[in-house]
Order: sequence, then C-alpha cells, then structure tokens
Amino acid sequence: MAQLITPRTLSGFRDYPPELMLAREKVLDAARRVYRSYGFTPIDTPACESLDVLLGKGGDESDKLVYRVLGAKAEKAEMGLRFDLTVPFARFAAQHINQLGTPFKRYAMGPVWRGERPGHGRYREFWQCDFDTIGTTSNAADIETVLVINDLFEAIGIDKFEIRINNRMMLNGLLEKEGIADKSLSVLRALDKLPKIGKENVILEMKEAGVPLNAAHAVISLAEINEPDNGKLLKQIHDQFESIQNQQALVGIQQLRELLEVAKTAGIPDGRIKVDLSICRGLDYYTGTIYETFLTDLPGIGSVCSGGRYDNLASKYTKQVLPGVGASLGLDRLIAAMEELKHPLLTGQSTPASVLIVQFDSARLGEYQQLARVLRERGIGTEVYPDARKIGVQLAYAEKRGFVAAVIAGPDEFEKGVWKVKQLARREESTVSQAELLGKLGEILRGN
Amino acid sequence: MAQLITPRTLSGFRDYPPELMLAREKVLDAARRVYRSYGFTPIDTPACESLDVLLGKGGDESDKLVYRVLGAKAEKAEMGLRFDLTVPFARFAAQHINQLGTPFKRYAMGPVWRGERPGHGRYREFWQCDFDTIGTTSNAADIETVLVINDLFEAIGIDKFEIRINNRMMLNGLLEKEGIADKSLSVLRALDKLPKIGKENVILEMKEAGVPLNAAHAVISLAEINEPDNGKLLKQIHDQFESIQNQQALVGIQQLRELLEVAKTAGIPDGRIKVDLSICRGLDYYTGTIYETFLTDLPGIGSVCSGGRYDNLASKYTKQVLPGVGASLGLDRLIAAMEELKHPLLTGQSTPASVLIVQFDSARLGEYQQLARVLRERGIGTEVYPDARKIGVQLAYAEKRGFVAAVIAGPDEFEKGVWKVKQLARREESTVSQAELLGKLGEILRGN
Repeated sequence: MAQLITPRTLSGFRDYPPELMLAREKVLDAARRVYRSYGFTPIDTPACESLDVLLGKGGDESDKLVYRVLGAKAEKAEMGLRFDLTVPFARFAAQHINQLGTPFKRYAMGPVWRGERPGHGRYREFWQCDFDTIGTTSNAADIETVLVINDLFEAIGIDKFEIRINNRMMLNGLLEKEGIADKSLSVLRALDKLPKIGKENVILEMKEAGVPLNAAHAVISLAEINEPDNGKLLKQIHDQFESIQNQQALVGIQQLRELLEVAKTAGIPDGRIKVDLSICRGLDYYTGTIYETFLTDLPGIGSVCSGGRYDNLASKYTKQVLPGVGASLGLDRLIAAMEELKHPLLTGQSTPASVLIVQFDSARLGEYQQLARVLRERGIGTEVYPDARKIGVQLAYAEKRGFVAAVIAGPDEFEKGVWKVKQLARREESTVSQAELLGKLGEILRGN
Repeated sequence: MAQLITPRTLSGFRDYPPELMLAREKVLDAARRVYRSYGFTPIDTPACESLDVLLGKGGDESDKLVYRVLGAKAEKAEMGLRFDLTVPFARFAAQHINQLGTPFKRYAMGPVWRGERPGHGRYREFWQCDFDTIGTTSNAADIETVLVINDLFEAIGIDKFEIRINNRMMLNGLLEKEGIADKSLSVLRALDKLPKIGKENVILEMKEAGVPLNAAHAVISLAEINEPDNGKLLKQIHDQFESIQNQQALVGIQQLRELLEVAKTAGIPDGRIKVDLSICRGLDYYTGTIYETFLTDLPGIGSVCSGGRYDNLASKYTKQVLPGVGASLGLDRLIAAMEELKHPLLTGQSTPASVLIVQFDSARLGEYQQLARVLRERGIGTEVYPDARKIGVQLAYAEKRGFVAAVIAGPDEFEKGVWKVKQLARREESTVSQAELLGKLGEILRGN
C-alpha cells in the first residue's frame, strides 16, 4: 500500500465546515438580495489575471502579496491570483464599458488571495463582496451606498451597527491650504493608524515624511473633533472652512449634509450614521465620501464594510474617465465577529434541512421518498436516512445534525395509515394521520 | 502619462457579464435549493492545496493540468489550484470525518482550474456543483442521487432531459468472467469513446491494450444492447448473467431495478430515467451505479450532470474506508446549452431589478429613495437613477437594461400626490395615486 498523504490545509488557508458555511451562505444570500434590490447586477471575473494587469508599476507593497500562477510545464509565471475585486473590476470596466453603458452598477462576490503572514482572523484566501456604481459623479450614488450598507446589515440580522462617514475633500482642502497636497498619501497612511499608535506617533510619522509640524497638528486637530451630534459637527467644521474660504472642503461638507438629509427622509434610523472625521481609509485612491462600518458590540474587530468615492477607476487600462463609488463587505471578518458575538445566525445546526425521515423499513423507501418530495415541494427540507439502521442510531444522527423533527413509519404505521412525528429538541412524540402530517410538521417548524 | 495596459482576459479564462451572470446565479440558486432540500450541507475548501495532496503518484494525465501557485518571493511551487472538487473533498473528509460523523452529505460549488488547451465551450476556469453522500453503501443513496438530478433540472426550468444510468458491476462482472479484470481501466477508456470513434476503433484500442478479441467483442455487445423499455432490458441482461452465474453483475442489475421502482413510487415521470449500457464514465474510480444526464434538444453537447458510486473516496489520505455516491453539475456546459437553446432563463435582461425610479428632481431624492425602500421591502427590486438627467436618457437606460417599469414624479406630480408609471415594453403610461401605486406595479410585474 502506498504511503498516506497527510490531509491538511495550507498555512493561511482554511476549510469551511457545515456550520460556518451555512452562516456564510446566509450572509452571501442577504448581500445578494440587498445588492440586487438596488439594481446592482452581478458580474464575475476570473481568479487569474495577467501579471501586468494585476501589478503596479513596481515596488508597491501589494505587488509582493500577489501569488504567481504557472502551468505544469511553464518556466515563468505570467499570471497571478487577484488580490482584491477592484483591480479585476477596473480591468473589466475598461474592457466592456462601451457595451455596458453608464451608469453601471455591479456587485461581485468571491475569494481573493494575498500572500501575507497569517494571523488571528487573517487568512491568505478570504472573501470580498463588493458593490460599485460607476460612470456618475452624482452624490445620489454616494448616498445610496450608505442606504445599501444599512439594508445589508439589517438583512443579515444585525441591528447594532454604526456607519461612520467622512469626506476626503475636507482633509484634501486642509492639505491644500497648508501647501502639502503632495504629501497626501503619507498623511493618510499615518492618520489611518491613529487608533492603533496614538496621536504622538502619528505626528512623528508625518514629520518624518516631511509634513511641517504645524500642518501635522492641524490634521490631527481636524481628525480629533469629537461631537456626537452630526448637525453640530458639520456646522462647526463648515464655519472653520468657511473662514478660510476653502471651497473644496465646503463641497465635501455639503455632500455629507445632503447624505444625512436624504437618509433621514428615506427612513434610516437615527444614530445609524455618524460623521467621524478620524476615519480616512489609508489609500489615496479615494477622493470624496468614505465609509466604515462598526459593530456596536465589537468595535475592536475593525470596520466590516468599507469604501468610498473615487475619481477614476480604470486609468491604468483606459483613457476613459470612470468616476464611481462603492464599498466592500469583509465577509470573513464579519463571520468571525458573529461567532464571537454568538449571533443567532450561527445556529449550531449542520444541516440545511429540518425534517429527517427515518428509514424504518427499506422496502418502504419509495413511500419515504414520496413523502419527502411532498415536503420539499412545500419548502420543507427533508432528508431520508440512507440505511435501515436501528432507530436510535438514526435519531442520534438527527439530533447531532440539528434536525428539528423526525418522521417515522414502520409496518404498524403503514397498516394504520399514520406517521409518528418526533419533535427532537423536546423529545416529544405524536402520531398523526397522513392528512394531519403537514399541519403537524408546520406547527413544529414554526415553533422552532 | 504612463502607458496603458491593454485590458484583457487570459486565454481560456473569461468574464461573466451581467446577462450570463444572472443566468448563472439562477442555476446556482436552484442547485443550492435542491441540494439543501435533500439535506446536503454546504462546505467549502480553499482554491489552493498542497501539491502532494493534489497530485497523483506521478505521470497521471490530470497532473499535467494542475496550475502551480507560488508566492512573490518563492522559488519553488509547493501548492496548486484544485482541478476538481472531488480531490479537495477527499482531503476534507479524511481530515474531518471523525468530527462530522457518517453518513455525511455535502454539496460544494465553485471554480476549478485546468491548464488544458482552450476550445469551443472549454475553459481553463470553470464551475462545478457537486453533491455526495459518503459513509454508506446503501442503494438508497444511489437512488436518491437520481431523484436529486431530476429535481435539479426541474428547478432550473428544464423538463426535456433524460438521466441515463448504468451499473459498473455488469461490466466488471463481464471482465471478471473473461479473466481480464486487470484491464478494466483500458476497457473503460476505450468504451467511453464509443459515440465518438465508433465500434471498430474501440475494439482496436482494446486489442492494443491487450484485451483478447473475444472479450472486446463481448464488451461491445453488452454496451450495444439497445432496448427502449427499461424492464425488458434488465430482464434480458439478467437472464444473460444468470446463465453464467455472475453474482456481481446480478447485484448491479438488482440495484438498478430497485432504483427504477423507488423512483416511480416517489413520483419521477415516466421516461425520465433510461438504463443505458453504453455509458461508462472513463474513470476506474466508479464501482456501482453511474449517471449521465442529457438534454433532449441538445444531446450532442454531452452529459451536463454526471457521477456515480465509488468504494473508497479518500484512500490516498486515510485508512478509513469511505464509500459513497455523488454527481456533479457542469455549470458552464449547461449554461452554454441554455444559450444555444434560447432557454427563457436567459432573459436578455442585464438588471436584477424590475423598477426604475426616474430622478426627475434632485431635491426629491429622499422621497425617491423612500418609495424605493417601500418597494424593496415588498420584494420589488428598485433602482433610483443616480443623476437628474433628461427623462428620455433615463428611460432609454431603463429599456436597454431590461427594467419592466419606470416610475416618474416631478413638481406637478408631487403637488397632486400622484406618480406616473410607465410599462416599458408596451410604452404605456398611467397616472396613479400613492395608494394605488403598489397595486399598479404589482399588476405590471405579474403581467411581465
């Protein structure tokens, strides 16, 4: 006999066993439903792209994270695994936008790969669920982004969350005024670390990047303005920027105001959206509204849905200017959070079906499957146990998997035309006629 | 300005634009619903596996198709992209079966990668949708497999299809009788080509592999038995194998008989299942019932859902014997067939939403989104156009995307408390009150 290969996953990669996968499918299903309900249309792109499409112009941090892919006989890798869904979308848009037309609203959900050091909750393969509207500069699309995020978390069954918004035009306006617009990326990268490394270190990092101390303090002061009332906060910074006649910042403030007004009229609950001048997203790609989403009971896990507005999606591949706005749900981080919070979506069940039909008598398999088909047609997931083993074994299986009810019939029951129904959690058993069976099961399942 | 990178997909890889992706999601959703309704539970495994997990013991054809994956700095590839979902499932089962328990029913849906020469309908990345029951040798699981395939195609909206079944025990019994059980793989590979290369060439190929001419003719004779009535066919071969007292073959025949009986009792339409002694699946992995599924209107595209029973799933990774049975839906081939057949699932729509709310007056965005949210809550996908452009432009967009209805309100309508509703395909317009709006839209959408 050949030597056995040890079955294992690679470092940074993981299996999704049934319990976790059932939760993931619920979240994906909710995301799909919500994205679609807003008219975002699905697209998909390959996992592999040409390396020149994927990689920046040399030396970027993210380039080092890209996995190279090569055929069995190839010597040199010419393709790689996507490290996000944005780059493939930019390539897709540049390639197809003339046929698609604008505005174009798409969602995409799938795994991405990054060769990072694995850590607590950080994997080398993880899922993103992106939605974007491109081909419009209208603030209506920015506003809609926040509505989508709100509906998304409600659909998942989470109601304790906060969407924090900011607008890059304020920071950019400030940098412009301080004469350091060219230091934007350094400032963003430093500021992004504020919650982690603290004010002094952020200032130090900016100083090292050549930002004058005065300007660094001005940036920190803006980020630190802390006023729980959105209206008062916007009034306060509006007055500040008006006094220095900074048009760019004032446009950004007006966009946030309009966002809050429309969200209120559209029915988003009070307190859901919070203007937070400290959030900045560490990429200079964003140019307007930016979004982060925090779970009230677990803010420390970080933002679970983030995004923003950008001026130009696909400048690497086309001269056509494609402005847009979008956000991305971090599926794996969210599910990790839900596990930690013991969210009811993670039910502990490992079966998607509710009813197990016990195989009491193998000669009756046709009748068992006939009943199962009737239940399935009514939307009740129903499994027929594959072997005619002892009833105790079959019921133990049902309990372990998390079935809600078991249905049993042997020669006696078939003779009388009845079924035994077991409510598994309560270990209650009743005997019902064929005509009563559907009603009885419905009652048990509703009670679950 | 930096030189533009040409946006393109790699040879053998492709994008899924909205129309195709909407169809793919419908098929995946149907598969998910049906698999779950039988109690198959979802699992997922990484796209990348260790090469020793993926590769056979040297020289296998499939090894040459495996894409190698390496990190940016790595010199040598130690991992690869999965080329099917069976090998990862075998690895997963060996690793986790003690926690999971048996029987274990799982489905998995996702892309796989093969470095083959691309061709008409043959891609290097394509999707598989597998379901398997492992840990049981019961024929009940084989029978269920055929019920799942039946319900799957019905759920997709296809009713003209035929599930062809056979049982390896007959062929194996024959090889045993002819004293060439060791030639099983060569026989299978040759026989698998029967529809393509014809009888003479199959015999020639078997002869070259060392199969005696008499035996080769016996194999062909068995495969060529053509009797449209399942019952008569089984009777005929039963008599043949009984006359030579071939127990193995008789067990296989009995399993097919039981399958047909149970399927009939369970309500599978007559003519759906056809015993076909010529199907063999070209892998020696299968040991019992085997399945292929053909579309009545496009049989030439080949089987769109295939599988079979195997004696041992994971012998490469564990000493634990895991018998099972399963099948795999070839998603890309099926969608290609549906395109060719102009199946109504491919609607030509490129939006998942039905209603477009025209942005007539940007100051009313809150009201538009408020109405949109009401419609979305009722399950009506509703997009608000992002810019307050000319109404004609917005309606042209709605028609191009395939929206069913457009809703319009400007200052006049808001003053009167009414909405204009346009049924886009018929270009009919009506004006309704706020209270009548939902009813009117429901009527239009039902009529679509």
